[in-house]
Formats: sequence, C-alpha cells, structure tokens
Amino acid sequence: MLPVNPERFLADLHMLRSFGAAGVGKGVVRPAYSDADIAARAWLAERMREAGLAVHVDPVGSVFGLAEGRSLLMGSHSDSQPEGGWLDGALGVIAALEVARSSVEAGGPAVSVVSFEDEEGRFGVTTGSAVWSGNLPLAKADGLTDRDGVTFADARARMPGRSEGFVDPSRFSGFLEMHIEQGPVLDREGEAIGVVDAIVGIRDMKITFVGEQNHAGTTPMQGRRDAFQALSRFNTLIAERFANVVTPATVWTIGHVALHPNASSIVPGKVTFSMQWRDGDADRLKRMEAIIRETAEEVAAKRGFDLSFGPMLGLEPVDMDARLRGALESAAVAEVPGRWRSMPSGALHDATNVSKLMPVAMLFVPSIGGISHAFGEDTDEADLVTGLNVLARAVDALG
Amino acid sequence: MLPVNPERFLADLHMLRSFGAAGVGKGVVRPAYSDADIAARAWLAERMREAGLAVHVDPVGSVFGLAEGRSLLMGSHSDSQPEGGWLDGALGVIAALEVARSSVEAGGPAVSVVSFEDEEGRFGVTTGSAVWSGNLPLAKADGLTDRDGVTFADARARMPGRSEGFVDPSRFSGFLEMHIEQGPVLDREGEAIGVVDAIVGIRDMKITFVGEQNHAGTTPMQGRRDAFQALSRFNTLIAERFANVVTPATVWTIGHVALHPNASSIVPGKVTFSMQWRDGDADRLKRMEAIIRETAEEVAAKRGFDLSFGPMLGLEPVDMDARLRGALESAAVAEVPGRWRSMPSGALHDATNVSKLMPVAMLFVPSIGGISHAFGEDTDEADLVTGLNVLARAVDALG
Repeated sequence: MLPVNPERFLADLHMLRSFGAAGVGKGVVRPAYSDADIAARAWLAERMREAGLAVHVDPVGSVFGLAEGRSLLMGSHSDSQPEGGWLDGALGVIAALEVARSSVEAGGPAVSVVSFEDEEGRFGVTTGSAVWSGNLPLAKADGLTDRDGVTFADARARMPGRSEGFVDPSRFSGFLEMHIEQGPVLDREGEAIGVVDAIVGIRDMKITFVGEQNHAGTTPMQGRRDAFQALSRFNTLIAERFANVVTPATVWTIGHVALHPNASSIVPGKVTFSMQWRDGDADRLKRMEAIIRETAEEVAAKRGFDLSFGPMLGLEPVDMDARLRGALESAAVAEVPGRWRSMPSGALHDATNVSKLMPVAMLFVPSIGGISHAFGEDTDEADLVTGLNVLARAVDALG
Repeated sequence: MLPVNPERFLADLHMLRSFGAAGVGKGVVRPAYSDADIAARAWLAERMREAGLAVHVDPVGSVFGLAEGRSLLMGSHSDSQPEGGWLDGALGVIAALEVARSSVEAGGPAVSVVSFEDEEGRFGVTTGSAVWSGNLPLAKADGLTDRDGVTFADARARMPGRSEGFVDPSRFSGFLEMHIEQGPVLDREGEAIGVVDAIVGIRDMKITFVGEQNHAGTTPMQGRRDAFQALSRFNTLIAERFANVVTPATVWTIGHVALHPNASSIVPGKVTFSMQWRDGDADRLKRMEAIIRETAEEVAAKRGFDLSFGPMLGLEPVDMDARLRGALESAAVAEVPGRWRSMPSGALHDATNVSKLMPVAMLFVPSIGGISHAFGEDTDEADLVTGLNVLARAVDALG
C-alpha cells in the first residue's frame, strides 16, 4: 500500500477550510469564483506543483494537477455551498492530493488530481465537470446567471491563470472520487466506508390538478373538487402502490406545493406540486413513473379534475465501473472488514459527468447525523483517515 | 298579503346595478366608499324618501329608511366585492324597499329598510353592521386599513350626509334579511327558497408541523420527518374521524398550505396550514376541534414532529328566531309548496351582527351554479320574485 501520510492529509484539509472560514464551527463560505474560492485554488495549485504535478487551470477554473503520461484521475471539488461544510468536495480533493503525492514519493502508479469548479451550482448543476464532459456546452454555460444576475462568462473570467484549452480526457484511465455520504446511513449503522454501486437516477416533474375554486362556507363537501384533497389522495395512493416496487434505497419526495388561491376561506381550485423520485435502477424509475401517471389520472378521473404533467427532468442512473469498484471493495474488506457496505449515492456528484468520459467509481465516509450543506457538517477524523487508506490501497492494487 | 310590485322591484334592482356596472355580464364593481357605492347610496336614500321613509345615514355610512314608531327592520348591504355580482346584498336591500313601500301604500305593518356599509369587508368583516351591533367599537374600526393602506376613518369621511348618531336598535322588533344562497344546493335540487335555520359558526386556526429538512436524494424514506407527509396523514385521518360526527351541511377546508423550504429537491422540514370548519351546532364544532387536536398530536407523536396550534378564530353559530323563521316557513309553504327547504347559511351575513340586538331570520333564493363573488353571479328573475313574495307574505303575517 502507498505510504500516505494522515497528518499531512489532515493538515492540508484544515488549511483548505481556512479559505472562506465561516467562523461558525468548521463551516466555510466558499462559493464558486468568490475571492475565497480563487485563493483556495491558487493554494491548491501550489500544493500540486510541490507534489510534482503539472498544474492546468482549464477555461472554467477547474484545477488539474497532472501526472506525466497516462494516469488515474482522482478528486472532487473545492467550491462550497453559500453556507457549506468543510468536507463536502474538499475531502475528495485533498485525499486525491495526498494519494498522488505519496505515489510520487514511493514511485507508485501515476495519479492526477482535480478540483472541479462550481460543483455546487452557483450557475448550473455540477457546472465545471458538466462542461468538461460535454454534457453542457461552454457557450450555453456562459449564458447562465446566478441569483444576482452575474453571468457564468463574467464569473469565470475572474479566475487567474486559466489555460485556453481543456485537458484531454483520454490521458486518464479512470476517475475515483471520495466524498462524504451526505446522508445518515453509515453514521447510524456505525460503518466506516460506503462503496458506491451506482449514482441514482433522478426523475422530477410538476403535476397540476385543477378542480373548482369555491366558497369554503357555502360549498357542501359532497360537491367539492378540492385540489388539496386531490393532492393528499394522490400522495397516499402512490405510497401504497410503490410498496411492491421500491427498495430501502429508493426515495421519493413531494417537496414543493403551490395551492391556488391559498386562502383559508376558499376551497382551493388548483394545485401544482413537484414529484421527484430517485433510484439506481432505470427500470425501477420507469415503473415508478407509470404508477405516478396512472394514479394521478385515476384521482383526476374520479372527481373530475383536469390533470397536467410538466416536462419530466431526468438524469439516468450511473453504474460504477466494475474494476474500479472492485478495487475499492477489496480495499474496504482489508481496512475495515464488516464495517463497510455497498450503497447507492442519492446525490449527484462530479463523477456523474466524468462517467461520460471514462470509467468511474466512488467511495463514501460517514456524515455525522447525516448533516451536509450546513456549517454543522462533520466526520470523525479517524473515518477520514480510513477513507484515505482505502483509496490508497485501491490505487496501489489498480497499479 | 302585501301588494308588492314585481316590475318595480326588478326595475330598481337593475337600476342599482347601473352603479359600478362592470360591463361584464351583470357584474358590478362597487366596493364600500367607492364613488359608485356613494352614488348608489344617494339614489337609495332618495328612493326611501319617495317611499315615505325617513332617511338616516349613520356615522359609518349605513343607510336606514325609517318607518315611524316601532317597526320591523329589513335589508342587507349594497356595497360589493371588488369583482362582485349584482344580487349579493343588493337583492335584500331592494326587496326590503319594495316590501316597505308596498306596506306604506297598503297601510300594512311598519317596515324600515337598511343597507349596511362594507359588508364585504374592504376594512373589517361585515364592518357596518359590526359597528352598529357593538361587535366592533368604532374607534377600533377607524384604525383598520384596506389593502392600499387607506384607513376606515378616512374612507367613511367620504360619505356625505352622515348623522352624528347611530339608530337606536330598540325601535325595531326584529330583522329579516333575504340573500342569494351563494352555494349550489337550491339550484341543484330545483328548489326556489331556503329558510335559514342557523348561520353557521366558524373555527379557523393555523397548524404547524416541524420535522426535519433534509436532502431529497440522500435521506432514506425510513428516517424522514417530512412535514408534507405529516399534513397528508393528518388530512386523511380527520376525514375518517369526522365521518361519525358531521352532517351533510358540515364543511371543513384546508385552503392554505405553506411548505418550507418548498423546493423539489429538499425534504420539507416544516408546514403551516389552515384548518377551518363550519357548522350550525356549537357542540359539533367543539367535537370537531377535539378530533383535530388529538389527530394532529397523534401524527406528531408518531414520527417525532413538533406541533403547534395558532390562535383559534371563532364565530359562534347564530340560531334564527323561531317566530320570524316560522313566518318565513309558512310563507314558503304557501308560495312554493314542496320547493323549499330549511338550511343553514354557510356564509356570514349582516344578520350575524344584528342578532346581538334583536331577533333575526334569513331567506335564501338560488344561486345559479352556486356562483357568487364573481361577475357571473345570477338568479332566475322568477326566483327573485318568489323570494319577494315569500317576504311580503311573512311580513303581512307577522303584522
């Protein structure tokens, strides 16, 4: 196994959180292209150089530390949410740096490092890796604006030292990303490592029931076409019908509800709500979609509601590469036997985009209490080091 | 029976809708203290004078046409919703005028007429009759503002010819109000008259469930404390539990829902929603409240939600006076045998306030399609005349 240095790894991780430190717990405020993000990337580039890697800042500000010749790529992102945790993204970048650095020192396999830009979506969604992978054309990305109306084109122009070209993906044999779980499973089960089997696919659409707006005093219950009641009935029925289709890892959410006119003395005539569901299996996503559409139609037909479905936004599930994943599993067995699991990633990651270019695999460490995207996000340092060791062992084995 | 004149009654009703005519169907735009409302009240006062009544415009702009000595009071309101129908309120005022006028002509019982101001609540709720009845002190009303920030004090100052004092309620033996149903029952059943047995009581409160806001991808269904799911479960359970308590006239409504943060990718951590219920029986309102509180507590306890109840707004049910109501029923039997019903009023009316001062009763005529508070509000003219005849017959019988 590569002789990684846990103290150096943790010291760099804590150093990175000094850029944009929130002053609340270990939290950071380091959104893409902020002064803190730009400074952190400059520091990171210097660390890459010190490790013997060639720095390449691509046109959108993703920072690569390139090993010579064909190499394995490792990393994640160092930008944060507007109120973010110290580990989300940063952990994967610094772990990659430590593995690459150790490998150079020990004459091990060639490892390159990357910190993608704007994974947290100040502009798009996983913007830096989306542009690199071709999922999002640069010209289109340049037109995106943040909440304050700043364009992506103007924001990326702030990043110093950018190259004119993108890194050729064919120089990489595959991509490994370590990340915090951002969910409660490993922490709750007392496990140290999750080897990701798939990044789940997402389906998201708006559904609208239009009934009849009426006076809440003079309209008998029997004649009502109350849009909230249609929503509640739909919600109850899909939960019953999903029961035979889903696994414990499947999730679905009604997170957005807009009632009209939304007044306590008026029977609501219209509701538009979001229906989002995620699973690692594309067939299951499709079966769930059929249940959703049939149930909504049944609820609408029964009481004479008009029904409409918005456009369905979809991201396909991404299976992890068998060879890379196998190396992570073997390393987990060696490091923490009986204290790891195979699990899907319910969240999107840069690896989703990178899978268009090369084989990918991912590793999770626990999130205490499942908390992320908040200043309170944290992981026991022993678990961070375990993650580093599993990565190092897998890279060694992959050669 | 008093020799009412249907043509004159309908002509006055159509004349009244020329004040603030919307130009859409028969709709009117005549909110309280608007130029159209002030002009309509001036016209109405003149009509009262012509009928031999003494006009008294009270400090808030309610227009009384007073018979000499002790009399029965009849009427409703002539202000409208911002987009209102031609009959809501206006019908009861013009029918009262026609009955009083005919009674003067025929030497019948003494009948006074009133058009209360701001029944539609540009400022408060049934403001004019609320002030007269003492339910709302004038000093408090004066501080109320409309949506544009205009105070009630400034608005009522616009009304010309106001007296300094209020009419002494002890000069009236009782109050009769005819109104459109504003609901679908009479129209659907092909009936001409509803004799109101009670104006329902209203209970209205906000309920809040606080669960846990989480990532919609990484949080397994099993560990979620999803506030929308709590709301949906609560809604389903109360419908089941109300079944043994309610009558076909009981209504309840969840008309306002505020999810937080209301985003499709976030498990909602908080929901505040309105729970409103109405019934003519105060005991039933209380039994429903107990079910609501117990069910919310049960749902909250089961999955660890924090639960809070906002202040409960309540209006007590108002029973109609037995003697006045009996007179209306006898008149309905004589005019439209088998085509009338006893029914509650699901909406508030000026009669609710006036019941503090004297015995009250109410009569409904059908609303086509149950439509009101909209330009499309209408009633067959034959039904309007039937309502007039029932009123006239009842007044004659009451002596």
